[in-house]
Amino acid sequence: MVGIWELEFNKMKNNTNKNVLVLLCCILGLIFYPNALGAQEHPNLILTKKGVENIRANLGKVPLFDNTLSTVKQQVDKEMAMGIDTPIPKDYSGGYTHARHKSNMVLMQKAGVLYQILDDEKYAIYVKEMLMQYEKLYKTLPLHPKTRSYARGKLFWQCLNDANWLVYVSQAYDCIYTFLSKAERQKLEKNLFRPFADHISVESPQFYQRVHNHSTWGNAAVGMIGLVMNDKELIDRALYGIKGVHLDKTAKDDDGGFLNKEGKAGFLANIEEPFSPDGYYNEGPYYQRYAMYPFLIFAEGLHNAKPDLKIFEYKEGVLLKSIHALLNLSDADGDFFPLNDGQKGMSYYNDALVTAVDISYYFGNQDPGLLSIAKKQNKVLLDDSGLAVALDIEKGKSVPFTKKSINLSDGPDGKQGGVAILRSKDIELVFKYASQGSSHGHYDKLSYSLYHQGDEVLQDYGLARFVNIEQKGGGNYLKENKSWAKQTIAHNTLVQNGKSHYGGNYDIGSKYHPELYMYNDSNSEVQIVSAKEGNAYPGTMMHRTMALIDQKDFEAPFLLDMLRIQSQTTNQYDLPFYFMGQVLKTNFEYEVPNTLEPLGTDNGYQHLWTEACGNATAENIELSWLENGKFYSLTSVSSNDELRFVRIGANDPDFNLRREAGFLLRRKNVANSLFVSVIEAHGSYSPVTESAVNSNSNIDHLKVVLDSTDYTAITIKTKQGTNHIFIMANTNASHTEGHIVQIGDNEYMWTGTYYYNEINSNK
Amino acid sequence: MVGIWELEFNKMKNNTNKNVLVLLCCILGLIFYPNALGAQEHPNLILTKKGVENIRANLGKVPLFDNTLSTVKQQVDKEMAMGIDTPIPKDYSGGYTHARHKSNMVLMQKAGVLYQILDDEKYAIYVKEMLMQYEKLYKTLPLHPKTRSYARGKLFWQCLNDANWLVYVSQAYDCIYTFLSKAERQKLEKNLFRPFADHISVESPQFYQRVHNHSTWGNAAVGMIGLVMNDKELIDRALYGIKGVHLDKTAKDDDGGFLNKEGKAGFLANIEEPFSPDGYYNEGPYYQRYAMYPFLIFAEGLHNAKPDLKIFEYKEGVLLKSIHALLNLSDADGDFFPLNDGQKGMSYYNDALVTAVDISYYFGNQDPGLLSIAKKQNKVLLDDSGLAVALDIEKGKSVPFTKKSINLSDGPDGKQGGVAILRSKDIELVFKYASQGSSHGHYDKLSYSLYHQGDEVLQDYGLARFVNIEQKGGGNYLKENKSWAKQTIAHNTLVQNGKSHYGGNYDIGSKYHPELYMYNDSNSEVQIVSAKEGNAYPGTMMHRTMALIDQKDFEAPFLLDMLRIQSQTTNQYDLPFYFMGQVLKTNFEYEVPNTLEPLGTDNGYQHLWTEACGNATAENIELSWLENGKFYSLTSVSSNDELRFVRIGANDPDFNLRREAGFLLRRKNVANSLFVSVIEAHGSYSPVTESAVNSNSNIDHLKVVLDSTDYTAITIKTKQGTNHIFIMANTNASHTEGHIVQIGDNEYMWTGTYYYNEINSNK
Repeated sequence: MVGIWELEFNKMKNNTNKNVLVLLCCILGLIFYPNALGAQEHPNLILTKKGVENIRANLGKVPLFDNTLSTVKQQVDKEMAMGIDTPIPKDYSGGYTHARHKSNMVLMQKAGVLYQILDDEKYAIYVKEMLMQYEKLYKTLPLHPKTRSYARGKLFWQCLNDANWLVYVSQAYDCIYTFLSKAERQKLEKNLFRPFADHISVESPQFYQRVHNHSTWGNAAVGMIGLVMNDKELIDRALYGIKGVHLDKTAKDDDGGFLNKEGKAGFLANIEEPFSPDGYYNEGPYYQRYAMYPFLIFAEGLHNAKPDLKIFEYKEGVLLKSIHALLNLSDADGDFFPLNDGQKGMSYYNDALVTAVDISYYFGNQDPGLLSIAKKQNKVLLDDSGLAVALDIEKGKSVPFTKKSINLSDGPDGKQGGVAILRSKDIELVFKYASQGSSHGHYDKLSYSLYHQGDEVLQDYGLARFVNIEQKGGGNYLKENKSWAKQTIAHNTLVQNGKSHYGGNYDIGSKYHPELYMYNDSNSEVQIVSAKEGNAYPGTMMHRTMALIDQKDFEAPFLLDMLRIQSQTTNQYDLPFYFMGQVLKTNFEYEVPNTLEPLGTDNGYQHLWTEACGNATAENIELSWLENGKFYSLTSVSSNDELRFVRIGANDPDFNLRREAGFLLRRKNVANSLFVSVIEAHGSYSPVTESAVNSNSNIDHLKVVLDSTDYTAITIKTKQGTNHIFIMANTNASHTEGHIVQIGDNEYMWTGTYYYNEINSNK
Repeated sequence: MVGIWELEFNKMKNNTNKNVLVLLCCILGLIFYPNALGAQEHPNLILTKKGVENIRANLGKVPLFDNTLSTVKQQVDKEMAMGIDTPIPKDYSGGYTHARHKSNMVLMQKAGVLYQILDDEKYAIYVKEMLMQYEKLYKTLPLHPKTRSYARGKLFWQCLNDANWLVYVSQAYDCIYTFLSKAERQKLEKNLFRPFADHISVESPQFYQRVHNHSTWGNAAVGMIGLVMNDKELIDRALYGIKGVHLDKTAKDDDGGFLNKEGKAGFLANIEEPFSPDGYYNEGPYYQRYAMYPFLIFAEGLHNAKPDLKIFEYKEGVLLKSIHALLNLSDADGDFFPLNDGQKGMSYYNDALVTAVDISYYFGNQDPGLLSIAKKQNKVLLDDSGLAVALDIEKGKSVPFTKKSINLSDGPDGKQGGVAILRSKDIELVFKYASQGSSHGHYDKLSYSLYHQGDEVLQDYGLARFVNIEQKGGGNYLKENKSWAKQTIAHNTLVQNGKSHYGGNYDIGSKYHPELYMYNDSNSEVQIVSAKEGNAYPGTMMHRTMALIDQKDFEAPFLLDMLRIQSQTTNQYDLPFYFMGQVLKTNFEYEVPNTLEPLGTDNGYQHLWTEACGNATAENIELSWLENGKFYSLTSVSSNDELRFVRIGANDPDFNLRREAGFLLRRKNVANSLFVSVIEAHGSYSPVTESAVNSNSNIDHLKVVLDSTDYTAITIKTKQGTNHIFIMANTNASHTEGHIVQIGDNEYMWTGTYYYNEINSNK
């Protein structure tokens, strides 16, 4: 404290004509902001003084770091040349004022970093001038004029974006903190930062006081500015929530999610609750990516400014684990699986993942596989972690990041279902048996999607939204997100009597989750996951087992899907397959109607046209299709099923939905039932050579040979004549107990949940 | 002749135990094949003795050549290890016997080349053994059992594929000619090659005696084996057709094309007729690519074996010109524009284009731009031309192949319309005012397609066929090719009263063609093409002008489309826009129906669902869409138009058609009319950054300010407020004559067909 005072007095001696004013401000500052003069150096948030010295010493020596720096410098220089604009807020996402303020926040953060690294005052001046404009503007601002949000911001239409702004701008402020005079700092803190932090927290508890990605941003924003200002009240508010504020536990937000069902709040609760011990984030990878930045950047700040908190060790190191989980929730191209409300195409090339990869490498155990992703990202954070990554890439330490099969539990204690990803050669199965996933969850228990070489074979539709595209509902969620994307029929899972799981009711859905029956990826030739769900339709138990089987007769591993249903009532069961591509061939007759009608009136059915109708006559239903130069085949055991080709897009007055295909098995008036299907990827077609290779399924016959309470057995006969049997123990998931089952003339003995082997084909 | 006899006698001395037999064979050979012992060395077709020496001398020194050789060697070695199979012919395209014989022909050709270059007898033995198997097989073969073709082959279901086989196998035979004994040669020539050549020519005149890509393959096959055998009769038959054979001029083939309307035949006629002086091939680039290989490989053989014919100079060097034309008929990615029956995805990466590029380079004027394409192809011909290309790439001579705007005339004399490609920055316009294009032509006069960065903005549908995919009609043309793909409504051009051009009648369509009105690419800021068509609908004259305008107010060059119709009757006009992507926004109201109905019952309309209906109420119709991260906008001057969104796929019982979108302007009960539209490419969207840039059209207003017999004038006002006028002289295409036009208060004076300039916006 003495040191700081001395410094201030020395400055005052050199600014004699401002002495009185400054002294007054300092005193006032001390009165109003008792924590504002803590004994800390700056920068201390993302950059540290020592880190900056190290970076400066390495400039010109580490290409990936230098190139990133050079790109950032070009961007900032270009924007600086165009001058500063801080327009009066007016627009939704996609509109000019929204885009401008969003751009400004990133520019300030970057300019701040450039000031530190390049030691060039023009960047500090730029940040200072822009901050001063904001200071002038902010104190005049009422709530944002657009009224759609449950928590309106001031710069933006929703507090969420205001919080984004403060997360970035805190960093900028930290970078130029010592460049500013004390008076300037106090002006900014009093008129801009403190009221800004208050607006998104104490004035907007419905936004701030939650366990939700919105609140994570809010907490990080308040906490980061608190760290820079060394304001204990703000830091505590960030970590633990607003003291004494309790929300109505039944209230909901715009998306229909509970505001605060559990009554928890604050950054630590936001780590505690949504992350499972495996690092799975309950809203899914798309929102995890979005929340990742505030989680990690605030954690980095806490690590630097409050090392005693040991934030990276919190909840057994879940923050770093979550990065590993997130990277594994991407396909071969690095695109995140679009579980729940996920926009397709979001990938580990997103800047939040640059942050995640660099921080994971630096603060974690220096996994050299992460370096290969950093290389693909082709940029690094301009801080200690980014420098470490770039340096180690330069030293040749990078190895490929190999994604393996993984089972990620869901729920704070890892006991609320999960997501399993089975990987075998070029095939990836994503099996979702997770809990509701907060307000961004879909009603898709035991659903799955299938990928081949990074392309979708059977798709998860993802969300119905064009994020930040103003023409499409201001870039916000479209009504079809609720009427189509969230509904069960939009997913590759079972629909009973045309209703969505849990009646499509969020309150009910939030109470339940499927239960893992077993997961086993230890045998690379037969990897298997199995889960049960008994609450989606009361009185009905669904048990789905999915296996990726890599067998020498097949060109690629195939997917075996066994969905066993036991119900107290007779029902209609619909099982859709959202295959991507163009129909090549079927083994059944079907009629195409003269006019297209919607398949139903609600629960998402109203968005499907029936393009063709048929009936299964043979024992197997066969459908093959072609996509992106690759052939795929579905073989399914039939049970007098009604068959339909459907097309998404009915009752879609604004063309918000993609006109993609589906194939539906419909089984009527049954209680217990079993759906068994195999999906193969095979062959290729090139429009350049016009050569079609291996364009046919390799399956001669798929047959159910036993289906009792305790066991289900199917045989898979190939066109080469080999015959394999798969037996599943339905009621005993033990990996170590033995079974003996008689099927026809054969007796099968094995240990563990399932049996898979070749059988003599003439038996 | 003496030399050869001496050689034979010397050989006979060394083979005393076979002397009598060989002598007998020689004498018999001389009696039956008087030309078989011409004084020529081998190889002399694609490879030459001298060329092979040169290649051998350069082995190991030219990476691209060495790599190609190594790849070919690996392929052939792998196949050789699996043994030879020459199954009894049974299947259509896509089936095993078809694929096997197709594969064999290529293998023999490659093995022959390997024998020559590597001087390793195992390759010669492989070719010889396979040929001997074919000799045994062929003499037992009846016509191929599949009956669908108008000209059945013996190895394959159509003569066309038999001809393919002989084109390749001739080269193999040439390569091992001197390795074989005379007796072996005579056995092959007598039992295999000669009858083979006869079957596809004198026994199949309906296939051979035509001007058509089929016949080109036939001519080349007969000519190439003739060159190897030095058989003048076959060579003459190849060059000039079957002597004395005249086909019924009204007969047609499987595709509905005339067999031989003009009575011309032979290889030279096949150069003469389908190629325009600019090198445009009348069937379009997809079939040009297909015909290119026999054209060029036979030409190379003729050049080597019959240099006096000066084949590369024939018709003012049209063969080499045609390669230049073909390369220019590809988009930014090298994919050919799918004019007429063209399969999308066919590109200059096809092997036929490796041949074309290498031959064009070597026998042409060594355009260094071709080297850059050869580099992308990453392989070369294993002959003199390929070596030259690889050597010059190695020497660093390659420069980018820059595609510019080009106008390609159609017709043997270049007077039957044409195809113009306007290119400006990343935009490519393909405007088709060509003649019918033989049996593969579509009824799409004055149609166009538009590309941006190699992606389709407004598509040409291409063909309805899955080439070589057995599941889809044996890989042959599908019935939807005729009922949809060829019809006018499937294209971006005008449909009058719901009927296709020329009544969809091939005989009538073959009589007429549009007339070029003017073409001018000299001003890079305003490039323009304009053509008229008066026979598609008798009594109606269509005049379409398309301009690519690169104006500083716009992010990218935009397309201006003016379609002027004058008719003696009142009609209904439909103008479709097959936009690729998802609708973002319209400025008009529309209704989506509860059930989808086909738009019509015939002429292709039966394949379109009406997805939405509306009416133009504002002066401009505005539609914007998003595709592949890029925004596009259509602005069209309305005239109480009925507006429809359509979707391809009605009445498509086998899912043969792609479910893609269209937008239709319908104008009823008018005689003369004018459609004016602007299409812009602008901005971008990234799902990784989720940032939408410049997502709105830049056009404030598009207006027709004059439409008289002699002049049509429109103004384009931008959102920045600038206003430009475009005036077209409708009846005087002179580039040098002057015009004065009064529009409102302004008088415009200019020289040439059009006027384009900024006008004072407050006038």
